[in-house]
Amino acid sequence: MKIQKQPTQDIFDDLCSDAVELDQLVSQMKDLMVEYVNESRKSGALVVEYKPPEELETLIDLDLTYTGVGISGLMPLLHNVLRYSVNTWNPKFMDKLYAGTNPVGIITEMLITLLNANSHVYHVSPVLTLMENHVSEKLARLLGMGEKSGGITCPGGAFSNQLAMLTARNHMFPEIKTKGYYNFGKRLMLFTSDAGHYSIEKTAMTLGLGIDSIVKVSCDDQGRMRPDELERSIIKSLERKETPFFVNATVGTTVLGAFDPLREIGKVAKRYNLWFHVDGSWGGSLIFSDKHKHMIDGSSLADTFVLNPHKLLGTPLQCSFLLASDRQIFQQSNSLGAKYLFHDNKYDLGDGTVGCGRRPDAIKLFIGWKIFGIIGYKQRIEHAFKMAGYLTNLIKNNNRFKMVLETPPSLQICFWYIPKGMEFYGQDEIEKESNKFQIWKEKLSLVTKGIHKKLQERGRFLFDYSPFELNGKELPLFFRVVINAPSINEHHLDELVKEVEMIGEGILEYLEKNNKFQNGLSLENQITNENHSMNGNGHVGDHRASGRTNGNSSNSNGISNGLHHIEHGY
Amino acid sequence: MKIQKQPTQDIFDDLCSDAVELDQLVSQMKDLMVEYVNESRKSGALVVEYKPPEELETLIDLDLTYTGVGISGLMPLLHNVLRYSVNTWNPKFMDKLYAGTNPVGIITEMLITLLNANSHVYHVSPVLTLMENHVSEKLARLLGMGEKSGGITCPGGAFSNQLAMLTARNHMFPEIKTKGYYNFGKRLMLFTSDAGHYSIEKTAMTLGLGIDSIVKVSCDDQGRMRPDELERSIIKSLERKETPFFVNATVGTTVLGAFDPLREIGKVAKRYNLWFHVDGSWGGSLIFSDKHKHMIDGSSLADTFVLNPHKLLGTPLQCSFLLASDRQIFQQSNSLGAKYLFHDNKYDLGDGTVGCGRRPDAIKLFIGWKIFGIIGYKQRIEHAFKMAGYLTNLIKNNNRFKMVLETPPSLQICFWYIPKGMEFYGQDEIEKESNKFQIWKEKLSLVTKGIHKKLQERGRFLFDYSPFELNGKELPLFFRVVINAPSINEHHLDELVKEVEMIGEGILEYLEKNNKFQNGLSLENQITNENHSMNGNGHVGDHRASGRTNGNSSNSNGISNGLHHIEHGY
Repeated sequence: MKIQKQPTQDIFDDLCSDAVELDQLVSQMKDLMVEYVNESRKSGALVVEYKPPEELETLIDLDLTYTGVGISGLMPLLHNVLRYSVNTWNPKFMDKLYAGTNPVGIITEMLITLLNANSHVYHVSPVLTLMENHVSEKLARLLGMGEKSGGITCPGGAFSNQLAMLTARNHMFPEIKTKGYYNFGKRLMLFTSDAGHYSIEKTAMTLGLGIDSIVKVSCDDQGRMRPDELERSIIKSLERKETPFFVNATVGTTVLGAFDPLREIGKVAKRYNLWFHVDGSWGGSLIFSDKHKHMIDGSSLADTFVLNPHKLLGTPLQCSFLLASDRQIFQQSNSLGAKYLFHDNKYDLGDGTVGCGRRPDAIKLFIGWKIFGIIGYKQRIEHAFKMAGYLTNLIKNNNRFKMVLETPPSLQICFWYIPKGMEFYGQDEIEKESNKFQIWKEKLSLVTKGIHKKLQERGRFLFDYSPFELNGKELPLFFRVVINAPSINEHHLDELVKEVEMIGEGILEYLEKNNKFQNGLSLENQITNENHSMNGNGHVGDHRASGRTNGNSSNSNGISNGLHHIEHGY
Repeated sequence: MKIQKQPTQDIFDDLCSDAVELDQLVSQMKDLMVEYVNESRKSGALVVEYKPPEELETLIDLDLTYTGVGISGLMPLLHNVLRYSVNTWNPKFMDKLYAGTNPVGIITEMLITLLNANSHVYHVSPVLTLMENHVSEKLARLLGMGEKSGGITCPGGAFSNQLAMLTARNHMFPEIKTKGYYNFGKRLMLFTSDAGHYSIEKTAMTLGLGIDSIVKVSCDDQGRMRPDELERSIIKSLERKETPFFVNATVGTTVLGAFDPLREIGKVAKRYNLWFHVDGSWGGSLIFSDKHKHMIDGSSLADTFVLNPHKLLGTPLQCSFLLASDRQIFQQSNSLGAKYLFHDNKYDLGDGTVGCGRRPDAIKLFIGWKIFGIIGYKQRIEHAFKMAGYLTNLIKNNNRFKMVLETPPSLQICFWYIPKGMEFYGQDEIEKESNKFQIWKEKLSLVTKGIHKKLQERGRFLFDYSPFELNGKELPLFFRVVINAPSINEHHLDELVKEVEMIGEGILEYLEKNNKFQNGLSLENQITNENHSMNGNGHVGDHRASGRTNGNSSNSNGISNGLHHIEHGY
């Protein structure tokens, strides 16, 4: 602990000088920010100077003391935080479904902090409440959800999905609100694809339905939920005397970026009177592009729809909307308040959620929309698709690379690097579970991980690798590059391919020399113990496959309780 | 829609100039902020220029268009937002359990936004993850929670309470994670005081336990949960063959600021092997003050403990920690991931929650602590208590005022204004449910609401009024002033008393003239239709009493299923 003459005493006494201090600190912070953003755009700028946790702990001062270091210690501390953090302003940050934000986003967050605003009740956040109501309604109308539609924000897509399922359950079975499931008797079932987000599982777990209540509907060979399989699954569930109540469709799956066919799925859901929820955390934003919005055709059928502007629209994290065809449904379903006290549901937004205090996240979209207009978002989206097309072409025309899906559904470009000396097997062959293919898959997975490790060490690009089951067959680990940031240009993508080629050159020899595998079989433990980022934990948090949970598997047709976890950057 | 030559086109093309734009905008924003803070501290500054929603909608431009107004429209928009928002920098904002933040808080939020950071997995937020781990452990150790203790942040206290109960349930009954409650058979029961926060009820509802699973333990005449009543309630529940599993104690209740006796309650919880959770959202921060930390003595017994630095420590909203005696419990209980992938629970924080993306809220406390030290927070807390004492004395020595509790438990000063011509009845008399006292109560409640309406219109102070049941008896509505901001001084409190006196002078005549009551009985509907802020919705979101829900009331001793909802500004 440093010995100092209690600098905090001065800080405390000087509260009247908050404005003076703010002036000085924001000036300093401005310089730091501008330099940081400038550096991030320079050629050769690192996305991250990556350090494993044990090493990083020695490089930053984590000491928290009785006395405090005083205001003069603030800027040096921030410098150090920035130095070892991931720079999302760098266009080569392509690791998550969000990218960096923009100056308008920064200013909006400064406004929120200045206000220290809490948008749970109108009387403490009047303007922000109106803006939230207004932008939610506008968004829901764009999605075609009807005249009574509207919504609210939640702290991230996972919480939006949770509130959607809770709202559905409370609306359809209000007795559960008071009595719980005790003696309820019905076996509630819900349906999602095996490529849907893991927050659906966490929600089923949280709500006390249990993950066994989830029917994983199988996908087609492009990773989209099959409506015919959905209907079959519902019928089977009814035959088992269960109570199907909820369908989750995903537009923009985490790994492949696939879009479930909403119209067909919505029709099936309605046919059986199920709640139709759409997780459009990633793809819902396409509503802003005339050119691409056909991909979410059928959004008008949704009872609830999640859309995260913090992903494709570049608003600061977090900004997640839960929209409903009936904007009053949240209060009606989730309030525990006395009706005689809450006559007008429109202005006290906290009452419809399970939270209390709320950050006014909606104004990040409100202000962005006001400034950029729909046209600004449309251009951003269309630029991303253009760049995704460019990268796809680069990869298709390079015989060291192989696309996972020949035509990527949206903005995730998934591919393998195939080193010289390795052949590539088509999907039909991959599906053969013979020993030969098992060995081949493991080897290719090791190649992916080996290259990824080097990529991360070099720090020029940050994108992830992923396990995946397509049509129930496990693919070798592959790279997933997310195209999102408007600062990405052709040059960055040329570089990306060169970077992978450069590292990939000689990767087989490297792996062999370092005893990573023998006869094509991995010696996984050796790798695991070597580097945190590679043991499937520090790294894989973003995507993990598990078919081995304790789920009481019911193997009847159309039901898979073996979980396939996919996390993404909500 | 304004016709413009597509300003967004330029914005979009100019992405390389993000740094230039940031420089300009942050400069402008800095000036706006400094002016705003300066104004807020001037004598006579308004806390809010209050407008009801219908009027406000006409005063701000809510139009969202195709084209967008472009960057030049940003600052005028922000000016307008600030003008009609509540100014929390003003020391006379005493409405919620949070106050304004401070320059260090502002800078920290700017850092978070600059990074656009997401602290769900280590590899995209290495520094912030270490800081979260470190500050959580330090906090838990301060609370005496032991060597294995630590924690994580959640988006607000309500979500922290939810995650605590979920963790308890999943840990004690892991089969619910997969099978849900279907055929579970046990009737899980939880215990909280009738002054506890409503998020406990929302959680019981969300988790599928139902609000009937809540036993409301009665309080003593100072609003504290009675340990003997808790034990009696648990025994009764066991006799009914239920399965008690969870006790929530509150340190710093929403309305009165009462502190449940943690040590005694903890001992009862342990005696019956119940999970001992403490909602210290408000009062947990007292751990930073040697002088006041005795009020949370027994925190070391907690299995989980919620502490919101965004309240008493002035970090920006939101910052809520959920601490546990075993820091690994969150992952162990809540992960659905495969164990073989998650060897080391310490660095991928998202896995232990039900969310996915996470704002790195923990660094708001980390950086504040680093700069101010424990001593800075201690001084802040002790100043607040000093000011609370000062206001208490003012009120006690003024015969127009009457304290609700003669000695306020902490920082909420709750009182009535008694107009000339009205007597005041002691609690014994209030408890008599005769017609005379009923009329008197309604009249005094109308006085409180009438004064509050004028207070809000004048906008010089913002503090709230509240309904409350003490010892099962409904009190007349009273004022609740929250002392928190370090900028509060004696002068502001003198003014507060004068402001109420000034408005209170002649309030009876005013109410009578405006036909608000006849023979002492209120004509509630007239008031309800007159002003949104007074109809119990726009206003009362922060505190509502309801003994009239559909709960399957079991009236055996110690159990009250009639809900008493208290919301506060988590």
